[in-house]
Amino acid sequence: MNTIVRVDLKTGTIKTEQLSDDYKLLAGRALTSKIISDEVDPACDPLGESNKLVFASGLFAGQTVSCVNRLSIGSKSPLTGTIKESNAGGSFALKMGRLGIRAIIFEKIVSDGGPQILYLSKDEVKLLPANEYTHQTVYDAATRIRNRFGEKVGISLVGPTGERLSLAAGIANTDKDGRPSRYCGRGGLGSVMGSKGIKAVVIDDDGTENPMVANEAYFKEVKKEVTQEIVNNEQVANSFTKFGTAGLVKLTNSMGALPTHNFSKGSFEKAELINGDELYRLIDERSGEGAHSHACMPGCLIKCSNIFPDEQGKEIVGPLEYETIGLIGSNCGIDSLDVISKINYKCNNLGLDTIDIGGAIAVAMEAGVIEFGDSQKALELVDEIEKDTYIGRIIASGGKRAGEVLGVRRIPACKGQIMPAYDPRAIKGLGVTYATSTMGADHTAGQTIRAQVEHTSPEGQVEASREAQLVNTMLDICGVCFFMASGIKKNFQLLANLVESVYGVKCKVENLEAIAEKTLAIEKDFNNRAGFSDASDYLPQFFYTEENPDVKTVFDVSTDDMRKIHNH
Amino acid sequence: MNTIVRVDLKTGTIKTEQLSDDYKLLAGRALTSKIISDEVDPACDPLGESNKLVFASGLFAGQTVSCVNRLSIGSKSPLTGTIKESNAGGSFALKMGRLGIRAIIFEKIVSDGGPQILYLSKDEVKLLPANEYTHQTVYDAATRIRNRFGEKVGISLVGPTGERLSLAAGIANTDKDGRPSRYCGRGGLGSVMGSKGIKAVVIDDDGTENPMVANEAYFKEVKKEVTQEIVNNEQVANSFTKFGTAGLVKLTNSMGALPTHNFSKGSFEKAELINGDELYRLIDERSGEGAHSHACMPGCLIKCSNIFPDEQGKEIVGPLEYETIGLIGSNCGIDSLDVISKINYKCNNLGLDTIDIGGAIAVAMEAGVIEFGDSQKALELVDEIEKDTYIGRIIASGGKRAGEVLGVRRIPACKGQIMPAYDPRAIKGLGVTYATSTMGADHTAGQTIRAQVEHTSPEGQVEASREAQLVNTMLDICGVCFFMASGIKKNFQLLANLVESVYGVKCKVENLEAIAEKTLAIEKDFNNRAGFSDASDYLPQFFYTEENPDVKTVFDVSTDDMRKIHNH
Repeated sequence: MNTIVRVDLKTGTIKTEQLSDDYKLLAGRALTSKIISDEVDPACDPLGESNKLVFASGLFAGQTVSCVNRLSIGSKSPLTGTIKESNAGGSFALKMGRLGIRAIIFEKIVSDGGPQILYLSKDEVKLLPANEYTHQTVYDAATRIRNRFGEKVGISLVGPTGERLSLAAGIANTDKDGRPSRYCGRGGLGSVMGSKGIKAVVIDDDGTENPMVANEAYFKEVKKEVTQEIVNNEQVANSFTKFGTAGLVKLTNSMGALPTHNFSKGSFEKAELINGDELYRLIDERSGEGAHSHACMPGCLIKCSNIFPDEQGKEIVGPLEYETIGLIGSNCGIDSLDVISKINYKCNNLGLDTIDIGGAIAVAMEAGVIEFGDSQKALELVDEIEKDTYIGRIIASGGKRAGEVLGVRRIPACKGQIMPAYDPRAIKGLGVTYATSTMGADHTAGQTIRAQVEHTSPEGQVEASREAQLVNTMLDICGVCFFMASGIKKNFQLLANLVESVYGVKCKVENLEAIAEKTLAIEKDFNNRAGFSDASDYLPQFFYTEENPDVKTVFDVSTDDMRKIHNH
Repeated sequence: MNTIVRVDLKTGTIKTEQLSDDYKLLAGRALTSKIISDEVDPACDPLGESNKLVFASGLFAGQTVSCVNRLSIGSKSPLTGTIKESNAGGSFALKMGRLGIRAIIFEKIVSDGGPQILYLSKDEVKLLPANEYTHQTVYDAATRIRNRFGEKVGISLVGPTGERLSLAAGIANTDKDGRPSRYCGRGGLGSVMGSKGIKAVVIDDDGTENPMVANEAYFKEVKKEVTQEIVNNEQVANSFTKFGTAGLVKLTNSMGALPTHNFSKGSFEKAELINGDELYRLIDERSGEGAHSHACMPGCLIKCSNIFPDEQGKEIVGPLEYETIGLIGSNCGIDSLDVISKINYKCNNLGLDTIDIGGAIAVAMEAGVIEFGDSQKALELVDEIEKDTYIGRIIASGGKRAGEVLGVRRIPACKGQIMPAYDPRAIKGLGVTYATSTMGADHTAGQTIRAQVEHTSPEGQVEASREAQLVNTMLDICGVCFFMASGIKKNFQLLANLVESVYGVKCKVENLEAIAEKTLAIEKDFNNRAGFSDASDYLPQFFYTEENPDVKTVFDVSTDDMRKIHNH
């Protein structure tokens, strides 16, 4: 787990470097942000030659501990103009761990001859022509790549929208079944990958084993403890595994935090048609290829994912997640899980972030392109992206640009990126995160929904967001999913113990927190060098002036307090 | 000249305030920027309720001295996110001066009942319904408004694109003949006016006289001196009056600074078909309604404007200016003054800035929407804006957004605004201005083409730009056009003498410079509070990495030096 693969796409040169000791505990987001900050000019054009795209596995990649194999991808974002890390499940990072690869750095741009594939196995790392996959959809390309390289390879790839440099394009990763639906969705990283001329990264861990750990006995003990914690956790069993993230619909709707009709209110009159109960019921009733519970990473014990089937029991999409339900469902006034899941699949297949596309459809609805709640027209709008029409281009550029082009005043975005499915007036800590995060509006940058605060009060939100940003960064460094934090009841010493057992170094939670703090500081510094400042950290004005009718409050956390968040 | 008209559009309340003594010498850009800075939240949504739109006349408005009656319009720009002032000729500011109005401040947004007209005369100031002009083109609306209010009124108005909140929309002003072609074009101020629900401002100075001056005898003497300077100036006679701004084509083409094919080179092989000589020849040959020389402001002695006729001698557009020829001509590979002037007219009629539209067409050409040099398709593309199709919306949102939506990597814009027609690698002082100006890429913010520097060398450019930014700001405060500076051979003491004679205060050039310095500082501070910083001041990366083949150099002025420009 100490190799960095550096790929110069202009010359086709591939170098492997050994991680220096200083970098021993830099993984995941800590590593992507460190490399981007050290090596990329903050003033660069994100889609130009000097931006870099960095894949990094987390601290425990390759180990078969539950929830520890997320893949971080980092770059300067063309959507936000900031530094960016976006992470996802799937099997890619686990295979990186088994191949001993901590990071892959893509530099420059393929100079001619069309898109390429980077192929990594224990025997070789090589670039291959990918012309035969040019402009192919994500599922088609993934199927063909698996047919060519084997069913068990991991694939990270972009769809036609990434190749077209659409700013809402993400990077898809295959899950344990080869389904390319685990998305590093946010920040337009798919357009960066497309700009570099990389269609896919294929990773084959055939013939490898789990990486060695420093203290095998201790590792087994910690792993067992983690397993016990998760297996015995009632919240995991009764909520995460049963309803997945979709369980949140009921909660946010009751909190007045479920974005509805382009963030004009916080509850949806048809919420019961798109909530976790209904999702569960439909999967149950339709059965077939459907599944209530599915692991996004091999070895996951929480299995919060799902597979949503149609009436004939045939898979529409897997997983169908809360953010997609919120942004494409209630926020567009769409009350059908069938429609939401079909749009979700279309987005996945085109290579798009469902949050920014949901936001774009909603602003298009506000502009009168189609009506709120018009499911058929919403499906057709996404088809316009596939046909690459001009309205398709507008939508595929994400909600911020779509709103600007269509003349919409109310655009729920921070630093160019559409907010996820939590109204910042109803969960004000998340409003602070949206405004102050180093990467634009992003719930995974500092989720406060479980924080012990009065969510509609301005009090304590900066502290809650600061704490959440730190914890989330720590998890992103570990390659650990957010639900694991609940699974282990925030006993983060278990993560520190894992570090001790894997790396043979002393580690306390404070040490991990220190890396997270340092990472946040590096990111903030990059953004400052890119031209942002504390004064860039605010929400769109309408959240300060328009009441959310469900909670009867505007966003009223003090701007001065927010600006102190990174300088406490 | 000491009244401020404050219009609360939400309530329809109109108040007049007297200018306090502190504000005596604050006019034009100094006044718009001071008011915006004092009264507008820098974090506000530029198209939302809390932004304001300020019209201000210059220090000598109402006087019949040559070149002193430009109108400044200021706001927070939705295109750049910065503070913005854009100024134009026409008769509006002269009439403001005669009515004793220094500024008009539009606050909030018309709450219902559609767009309105603000009408000002010596007897009344009132809001009137403008529904009958909704979505009308600029020329149609101006004609009807003149038919209704009289041929001699001054009109400032927006076209359908301003009403649609298109980010490349400007504000048109009528010239002395009532032709609505004097544009406050830049920064999307037309969309701000549209967002407020103001279709037009109509100003009627019937029954008024030139404003009193403090020292009539001295005023006449200074006026005479200014007149003599301009009348006897050979550059004025042989260049400005004869060829107008179009005379620049030959110069910039020879310098390698004429943007060609989306800023991919600095000279155009067909330049002789679109230069000042050809313009002169065609106007001469076609005669009819054409005119080599035309005054944009009443009383102007330079008369750098023109009226360009078609083969039958019928007016196509007036004026046809250098920036339009550069951006819509060479930068799009279009080699016909007929086509350029037709596109210019269409833009004027739709209410659009020709610089940002030229930039948008060029990036669309780079994206393959149409071919470089395809005149017919370029005309049709502008017709798409009239039809309000999606590609029309994309183009009307300006070159930056158009490029982002269409997946173009090379977008020649700073802070969201397309560069005017000077390649920053060939005239590096202008590159410094584009990067560091308080309002995005704008030549009028600091024109260095006549600076005594080696334009392709990085040396001395920061100083040249600093000096030019100061001079240009001073002129913008005086309401004086840039050509007057040449007309009076930069003897700015004449402007100070005018201040003395009009206001009865002691004034030296240093006093005017001090107001300009203070204005720049206020603007910079506003931008900092909006989230910009010195680190926001850079050119798009391709100017640093791609050589301009005509001058064989990249942009290489030190970033560190540029960042010191406002803090010397």
